[in-house]
Amino acid sequence: MDTEKVSIKQYIVEKLKLINAHIAATVPTENVPAILRESIDYSLLNGGKRVRPILTLASYEAFGLDSKPIVSIACSVELLHTYSLIHDDLPIMDNDDLRRNKPTNHRVFGEGIALLAGDALLTHAFGNLAQELRRLRMSGEGNVINTDQALQIIEEFAIYAGAGGMVGGQVVDFTGQSEFSGLEQVLYIHEHKTADLVTFSIRLGALLAGASEEQLEKLTVFAKKIGIAFQIQDDILDIVGDQEKTGKTIGSDDANQKLTYPFFRGIEESKQDVLALIAEAKREIADIGINTERLEAIADLFIVREK
Amino acid sequence: MDTEKVSIKQYIVEKLKLINAHIAATVPTENVPAILRESIDYSLLNGGKRVRPILTLASYEAFGLDSKPIVSIACSVELLHTYSLIHDDLPIMDNDDLRRNKPTNHRVFGEGIALLAGDALLTHAFGNLAQELRRLRMSGEGNVINTDQALQIIEEFAIYAGAGGMVGGQVVDFTGQSEFSGLEQVLYIHEHKTADLVTFSIRLGALLAGASEEQLEKLTVFAKKIGIAFQIQDDILDIVGDQEKTGKTIGSDDANQKLTYPFFRGIEESKQDVLALIAEAKREIADIGINTERLEAIADLFIVREK
Repeated sequence: MDTEKVSIKQYIVEKLKLINAHIAATVPTENVPAILRESIDYSLLNGGKRVRPILTLASYEAFGLDSKPIVSIACSVELLHTYSLIHDDLPIMDNDDLRRNKPTNHRVFGEGIALLAGDALLTHAFGNLAQELRRLRMSGEGNVINTDQALQIIEEFAIYAGAGGMVGGQVVDFTGQSEFSGLEQVLYIHEHKTADLVTFSIRLGALLAGASEEQLEKLTVFAKKIGIAFQIQDDILDIVGDQEKTGKTIGSDDANQKLTYPFFRGIEESKQDVLALIAEAKREIADIGINTERLEAIADLFIVREK
Repeated sequence: MDTEKVSIKQYIVEKLKLINAHIAATVPTENVPAILRESIDYSLLNGGKRVRPILTLASYEAFGLDSKPIVSIACSVELLHTYSLIHDDLPIMDNDDLRRNKPTNHRVFGEGIALLAGDALLTHAFGNLAQELRRLRMSGEGNVINTDQALQIIEEFAIYAGAGGMVGGQVVDFTGQSEFSGLEQVLYIHEHKTADLVTFSIRLGALLAGASEEQLEKLTVFAKKIGIAFQIQDDILDIVGDQEKTGKTIGSDDANQKLTYPFFRGIEESKQDVLALIAEAKREIADIGINTERLEAIADLFIVREK
């Protein structure tokens, strides 16, 4: 393991600790029924990798700023991500029994409570974002965001997470119905179900840091490319894992139930595409006047991961 | 029918038309899969009474302002209310087949799409609120609110709709588990599941109108009382309806499945309590320097309704 990788892993561990120290407090406690609180905390503190809020912090720091004042803001994307996992795991969606090697929320608390815990997390993702943006403005710490930028950030959060964003991606993944077919459909799903929240996470850091329009645009392309690469890599690891377990080959019935990127492109080409996407992503932000070292190192970790 | 009632009914019809003309446009269309759009529109345009956004407009107008510039903002509470109905109707919650005499969303689109349509509506309730608050600020119309007030409004929305508000009320209604029992538990459910969003609707209008702390406090008490009265009236109408249909009396097994206010207080006492709550609510805002005639007339309609 070379030094750079050690250092980015240390960075990630440090940020993960910071986020874990803040995240439970982002959901209010007043009047909250005990069973709901338990269900929320179960999923919120279930050992997530916190990739999205870490990207927010790394993006903010790329502008030479200390990210401490925005840790609570960054937690908003993790609240939203957590709701989406709880709802995705429900029997009426993907019907998963395990998440991070533990029983899924509905297996512990029942489907009704899991639904409502997800609803509460989605609600407080926005409530927390509004509250912490106001707190940041009042504190005068970090870059001062102007009057209407804060509202624009909340609007964007809804766009990337909503009907034309993450929820839209989930709909097409779930139904297989869309205006596109084949590889185009897979790319719609990967862009919206996965890359959209990655993109918002990175834009959030940049918007809070006062990025220029050009910087924001390039970071958005970077984010979209690494988000899609991440999901293709996920598809590849799923198939490789399945092949090791079952001995089945790609294109067999089981691998076919959900159409994946490698199904259309082949495994080797998919691996090449991941590398190409990451390289293109890095080139995009190579020359925009900020220190993108950490963002690039996190992108590299997306490829070398094995699960 | 006396003149005042005719006039308030005309007022409600007029506002309902305005809200219906704006509400579909509050959900973005870009990148939205057709099936999701259909499912969202099905519930959003399904003939709702629009009580909550109408209360927002009436509350704003009580301060002598023209409510036209805030119609789109008021739609946010209806988006949120609509998501809550779709999720409540799901088989894993109340398992209802009909809503406003039409098949519920999941009966038409399936449970997965209904879940996701609800998630999208909840997301855009916040996105629309942020977007329209910014648009209002930029337009310079109506009372001018500053950014931190706008952020506070979004925070409040999450508090009244979230884990300690509407979702909390739904959890206790669904599980029957809470820190309280008996009538206290019924009141927790009525306050949070129903009155909280009514309260936010009225506070939203007042906050946008630049209400003083004292006016806001009194309007909040008014809202909470009429919200609870509305839900007790609902309990009464359910039981009276059931008695007419089945001939069963209160306290019989069927009426017992969900504990209601009349179960603890008796039907006649419950009717008296509704009248008392409305009277107390009106007294609360009698002398706060705004024209509360319409808010009071809407409260009266809550009692005289028969379904």
